[in-house]
Amino acid sequence: MTQIEKVKKGIISEEIKQVALAEDVEIVALCKLVAESKVVIPYNSKRKKKIKNLCGIGKNLRTKVNANIGTSSDCIRINNEIKKIEIATRYGADAIMDLSTGGDLDEIRKRIIDNCTLPLGTVPIYQAMVEEFKESGDVQNLDIKRILKVIRKQADDGVDFMTIHAGVTKETIRSLEIQKRILDVVSRGGAFLLSWIRYHQKENPFYQDFDEILDIAEEYDITLSLGDGLRPGCLYDATDQAQIKELIVLGELAQRALERNISVMIEGPGHMPMNQIKANVILEKELCREVPFYCLGPLVTDIAPGYDHITAAIGGAIAASSGADFLCYVTPSEHLSIPDIEDVKEGVIALKIAAHAADISKNIGKALDKDIAMSKARKELNWETQINLAIDPQKARKYRDKLSVKDEKTCSMCGEFCAINMVKESVKVR
Amino acid sequence: MTQIEKVKKGIISEEIKQVALAEDVEIVALCKLVAESKVVIPYNSKRKKKIKNLCGIGKNLRTKVNANIGTSSDCIRINNEIKKIEIATRYGADAIMDLSTGGDLDEIRKRIIDNCTLPLGTVPIYQAMVEEFKESGDVQNLDIKRILKVIRKQADDGVDFMTIHAGVTKETIRSLEIQKRILDVVSRGGAFLLSWIRYHQKENPFYQDFDEILDIAEEYDITLSLGDGLRPGCLYDATDQAQIKELIVLGELAQRALERNISVMIEGPGHMPMNQIKANVILEKELCREVPFYCLGPLVTDIAPGYDHITAAIGGAIAASSGADFLCYVTPSEHLSIPDIEDVKEGVIALKIAAHAADISKNIGKALDKDIAMSKARKELNWETQINLAIDPQKARKYRDKLSVKDEKTCSMCGEFCAINMVKESVKVR
Repeated sequence: MTQIEKVKKGIISEEIKQVALAEDVEIVALCKLVAESKVVIPYNSKRKKKIKNLCGIGKNLRTKVNANIGTSSDCIRINNEIKKIEIATRYGADAIMDLSTGGDLDEIRKRIIDNCTLPLGTVPIYQAMVEEFKESGDVQNLDIKRILKVIRKQADDGVDFMTIHAGVTKETIRSLEIQKRILDVVSRGGAFLLSWIRYHQKENPFYQDFDEILDIAEEYDITLSLGDGLRPGCLYDATDQAQIKELIVLGELAQRALERNISVMIEGPGHMPMNQIKANVILEKELCREVPFYCLGPLVTDIAPGYDHITAAIGGAIAASSGADFLCYVTPSEHLSIPDIEDVKEGVIALKIAAHAADISKNIGKALDKDIAMSKARKELNWETQINLAIDPQKARKYRDKLSVKDEKTCSMCGEFCAINMVKESVKVR
Repeated sequence: MTQIEKVKKGIISEEIKQVALAEDVEIVALCKLVAESKVVIPYNSKRKKKIKNLCGIGKNLRTKVNANIGTSSDCIRINNEIKKIEIATRYGADAIMDLSTGGDLDEIRKRIIDNCTLPLGTVPIYQAMVEEFKESGDVQNLDIKRILKVIRKQADDGVDFMTIHAGVTKETIRSLEIQKRILDVVSRGGAFLLSWIRYHQKENPFYQDFDEILDIAEEYDITLSLGDGLRPGCLYDATDQAQIKELIVLGELAQRALERNISVMIEGPGHMPMNQIKANVILEKELCREVPFYCLGPLVTDIAPGYDHITAAIGGAIAASSGADFLCYVTPSEHLSIPDIEDVKEGVIALKIAAHAADISKNIGKALDKDIAMSKARKELNWETQINLAIDPQKARKYRDKLSVKDEKTCSMCGEFCAINMVKESVKVR
């Protein structure tokens, strides 16, 4: 039975209990949200290694952050990827996606599952492409058999959620051609399927044989993350007919998954001007039965490579405060190179800030409590508590210790003109 | 004659011409905005050293970014402050504020003016406090005479805009006491004036003798930046009656300045949940005759010391897209120590990203042009152009060069599965 089936039948699983406890929500309310498909709990039912920190994603819950890791053919260092998982987890990532395309992908995935305490996602098209290329020398030979084989293999290993690129269809490509984008397609899966469809003049196998994918998803209770292969790759291309038509297709496919009680999320852009973000979130919710919205950023300008964790934090905060549920991090190395460990840390922290700010804005649970505790510590000029409450205590301490201060109570910014001290003194004379 | 007087009389100054050219707006339209006080051009009319890059701030213009620099008693290194100005200017700051409180303040300010090609702002209360403390040993002895003397001295040196803390009054303090904030007052000027008012049981001299301040401002055509001494210091304290009552006082004072054709801006928070930012911008515009709004951040969470350039970029982007005109940067060292050169760079870039994203969102001028150029370079896999167009070309190049790639056209993230290449190939088979 899938999680949705269970809640519909009134069965309260361990996963529901754990998530309700972690989020401080009523079990009954959470069951209702899962039954209505407004919340998903990515968790492979045949997982051997259990997840330490289950993660509920969706309405009324804390906004979650995903960290992408993985090898590429230019950089295959599995121990490095394990370290990325560790640092992402330490700084509060809620899920990990393995996007490896270089090296022994089966072996890498097994190592990752062994070393990951968070829900794990994958993008099966990557492995399917890599294997096809290795075996037949032509990635265009890829067919649904191999795709299903890869999906099943990854499900067997214990993967909890998978990006499925079923929205790039003959029809959505037609819109793309009409639209005349600057950057066409920037999703690797999306670009491949575009080329496959053009080469074979056939329909996208993920779309064509979606029911067979659903069969596997049902068997393992995989959460399907319907990928936006046609997401805009720059601000100029955002919110065009190709993107929105694909969203409509994803909404139809989500409905088909839900009819079989399979959990589903929708992936979203991408690159987008600030003023279009809210409209995109509303569209996703309306067109896709309010299933959780999983955003990549969005990045609110194209001109800041090296700082795209910040452009994504701005966009992600606005998206989440508008109703997006799950933010995929972007690291400073985006558009330039594969992220290293420090980039992973920077990316997780930037998007955690965005998610937290949005949760305060949406009044989710006790989001403001930590901010209140920090503010009280500031009032008391209690530096140790401030540092311990900080999102990155090590960095906060480094800054605090950078310059010696004459008065231990104050900081090197204000010195003897500390506003807090002045107010305290003034109370005495009143 | 002040700039406002000139435009009202139909005189088109060099400053108007320069700003119109830089912003690509019609001179007539700009004159109207200056006459209506919706745009200010901070520029001391008796300046000896001319500003290289004049800066128009306000409606329909590009959002501007200010970088604070300055010594404190714990850190007096004037050459370091000069380097901060250089780096802030290089990365696109539009104005500099000297907040020095340590060392020979007159000498420091002169050095700064000599080395700054941007409009310069100051906070006269700082020097007044420091001098009073040095001379009489008790900062509470400060009176309006010294305040006016400092303002005149700074004006004589060529300072273009000044923060005037006239909103902390007996009446606004009463609201503060009713409200029971966590962090009371975090503005140094505000905290001092609170303590001064309580100590003397007299009205704030900046408020009491505002006309005398206007006399000097008129003489030098100083742009007054009406400081929000009661700005919230944490999210919990935001948008309370003390803050809004002070804003009403600032609106009244702005009107008095405008009646004498003196340019004026209003300073704004501070710390604020995302969902309150737009309301605060609307309030400022409505209560203060639409004079430019100068925001410090706002910071959208309290828990990220070490990353407050990011929390401020999120808040600043939302504020600017809602109509704020001028963003004061926040550096990663905020709340922890006085910023060093690297912090200044990080702060300027983060807030420039916010300002630029907001300008795209508001459709200001040709904001999107650079993004379009970057997107075209990405489509062409033209790495040199991408790097040159980046907000920080050095950092972009460092990332690009971090890992060697097999194919010079691609990056180490996607390698042979480059989406852009796949789409290009697919066009050939169509």
